[in-house]
Parts: sequence; C-alpha cells; structure tokens
Amino acid sequence: FFDQFRMVLMTTDVDLDQYDNFLFDCDGVLWKGTAIIPGGLRIIKALESQGKKVFYISNNSMLSREQYVAKLAKLMIKANTDQIMCSSYAAAQYLFENRQLGKVYTIGQEGIAMELAAVGIPCLESRLVHNHNIPRAELDDVAIDPEITAVVVGYDPELTYTKISYATWLLHQNPSVAFISTNQDATFPSAVRVFPGGGACVAPIIVGSGLASCVVSGRLIGISTSR
Amino acid sequence: FFDQFRMVLMTTDVDLDQYDNFLFDCDGVLWKGTAIIPGGLRIIKALESQGKKVFYISNNSMLSREQYVAKLAKLMIKANTDQIMCSSYAAAQYLFENRQLGKVYTIGQEGIAMELAAVGIPCLESRLVHNHNIPRAELDDVAIDPEITAVVVGYDPELTYTKISYATWLLHQNPSVAFISTNQDATFPSAVRVFPGGGACVAPIIVGSGLASCVVSGRLIGISTSR
Repeated sequence: FFDQFRMVLMTTDVDLDQYDNFLFDCDGVLWKGTAIIPGGLRIIKALESQGKKVFYISNNSMLSREQYVAKLAKLMIKANTDQIMCSSYAAAQYLFENRQLGKVYTIGQEGIAMELAAVGIPCLESRLVHNHNIPRAELDDVAIDPEITAVVVGYDPELTYTKISYATWLLHQNPSVAFISTNQDATFPSAVRVFPGGGACVAPIIVGSGLASCVVSGRLIGISTSR
Repeated sequence: FFDQFRMVLMTTDVDLDQYDNFLFDCDGVLWKGTAIIPGGLRIIKALESQGKKVFYISNNSMLSREQYVAKLAKLMIKANTDQIMCSSYAAAQYLFENRQLGKVYTIGQEGIAMELAAVGIPCLESRLVHNHNIPRAELDDVAIDPEITAVVVGYDPELTYTKISYATWLLHQNPSVAFISTNQDATFPSAVRVFPGGGACVAPIIVGSGLASCVVSGRLIGISTSR
C-alpha cells in the first residue's frame, strides 16, 4: 500500500511508517469539484486500517467543520469534526481565543457564521443583508451597527459593492475592529473556469480601508497577525 | 482679484499673470457633492474676463465630457467639451490612439460607454448585463463574448462578483486584451462617508487575473502603461 501512496505523493524517500498523522488538503487536491481523486478513498482507508490518524485541512471558508463532515460522507469518507481544520473554523477560533467576542460582519458563505455560532459569537451576515447592491444615493443613509467589532472576509461569489463599502466603514470608524481574511488565494478553480478567489474578494476592502493587510485565518499553522 | 485667488491657492509667490491656462480639479476640489466651493465661480469668471483659458480635469470616469459640461452648467459655469478632460474620455482616447478599436467590456458608469461611442468603439456595459450577481452554479455557463479586446474599469457603486469574474476571464483567456483602470483612488468621499473608490473596484480584478497592474487613464498627463 505505502508504495502506492508514495507514488501518489511522487516521492520515494519518505518512510511513511514513522508518521502517525496524515493531513490532506481538500479542494482541488483530495477532491476536484464533487469527485474524489482516483485512489484517494483507498489511501485513506488503508491509512486508517494501519491506525494512522487522518485530518482534512482547507483554507476554504465556505463550509463549517460539520458541513465538511457531511461533504466527506458523500465521498464515502467517515470523519468527525475533530479531523477537520478549515479557515471558517480557524477564524472563529482566532476571535474566541483572543477574547474578541463582539459581533462580527461576515462576507462569504454560511460556513463562517456557523463556526462563529459554535463558539457563541454573534454575527451580521452580509449574505443575508447585502447580497444586492443598495443604490449609491441611499448608501449614505445605511446605518452602521455599532456592536460590530470584527470583519471576517472569505470567498464570496455574491460579493457586492455594498458589502465592500460596509466593511470599509467598519474598519475606518474604529481601528480596534479586527480584520480577518480566511484566505488570500487569488483564484478559485472550478471544473470549467478560474474564478477570482478569496484574495480577490478581500482586496477591495484592503484598498478601500487603507489597511495594508489583515489577519489570515487560512494560514492554518500559525495565523499571521498584521493588524 | 488675483490676490484672492492666491489666497485660495494658499500660495503667494506665484505670478498668475504669466500663465495663460488654468486647470481645475473637479470632484472634492472645485465642487463638493453638488455645491461649488465658495468663491469658485467668481474666480473662474474673473480668469475668463482676463482672457485666460480654463480647463476642468478629473480622474473620475462616471461622466462623459458632455455630462461634465451639463454638470458645470448647473453650477453656472459655461464650458464646452474642449475644456473638459476626464478619465472616461482619456480611456477612450487611449484605445482610439492605440488603434485598439475592438469591443470593450466596461465596469463603471455610463460616462465610459458614452466616450467610447464618441470614437466609434463598441462596448458591452457590465452595468446593463451584470449589475446583479449570477448564481455561482450558473457562472460556469456564462458565455464570454469573443469580440471583446479590452476591459475598462472605473469607480462602480454597483460592482458585483459577476463583473469581477467576467473581467478576469477576458484577461485570462487572451494576454492581448487591454486592461485599463480609469483611476486608482483608494477612496471616494461623499458629503457623509468615505466610500471605496476606483482603486478598490479594480483591485479584485488585478488580484483575480494575476496581473500586477494595468493602464491608468486617470493619470491624465502621461498615461502609464504597464500591460
């Protein structure tokens, strides 16, 4: 088995027996779109049968850990939330561990809100309130929620100018508002096309707010802090 | 009169008599919102009465030169299009002078399309076709117009992920597609708030397309060329 795994890894000089834990990247690696890569399931089953621990990591924030468990189940992989590390979870953990427990404005999909809810952090989901652009003439009158203490931005295929504006207002008005990007990937490949990724979604907020950078929760081993 | 003008300029060591042409920046300078600055009209009238030529320049691409003439008329300033230099006009002139006369995809407001029409360049206006986000699941099936040979991006208060995606696909698929940003201002001030500006609108396309930069038509004296 391990020979086959080494072939997949395209490396032959690693002694896999000496490792107890195996981390798999997910989107575009372990699976592409909705299909697991050839041999992927067999490798995972074999690792588990040898008593190895398998983990699934992703800098994608679209899903929560529970949603990843459900996605893995569809691919015939049995896993629990303890085996998942995704950037939605990392963002929530970062805020929780840094005692930044105030309301969060989220740009992205529901995974972020679900992970925030799991640690008791309230949020205003932009996908529910700003998925359509508010006319420019009315933007001056949009009330800004004073309870918001953090902005979390992930890949958002429904990004709007209103979302970008609201995030920049929050960051402008109070330098203590935390600014977290779940990943900085320039692109997000589908089976057919290359889409602008999480890095493209956060870029207009970085420019518009005048902030050079932000915390990136997608760098799972050691979150980089720059605000 | 010139003493007053010098006071406005906050400089006292310039001999205004030696100059024939006077260039006024517009948004946020000659006027704020819909109101001309105090003394602005008097200064312009006095300059004109002395035989000086007055020009109005802006890196804003929201309006065409004709629309600027109309806007000035509302402020009681009589001008013709020859006295206007705005970045929508500069973008159209850049394409025209470089013989890039193919179809243009525009992100921004109608000023860009009007100036392109004035030089006979056809365009697909994103504000007419992509002002609402197309659902993610349908984006793979969006047809890309093969006739488009340039992307022009300006300040767009109706920016959507679909517009950003469409622009990046055009730039990905063909390196000869021209990429023009009408300005790179990080912010755009209203009377009430600071909004993300043209630079914030083009940022996600720069990131998502992997292009470090683009032609900036808002740098009116000497367009910078970097693609």
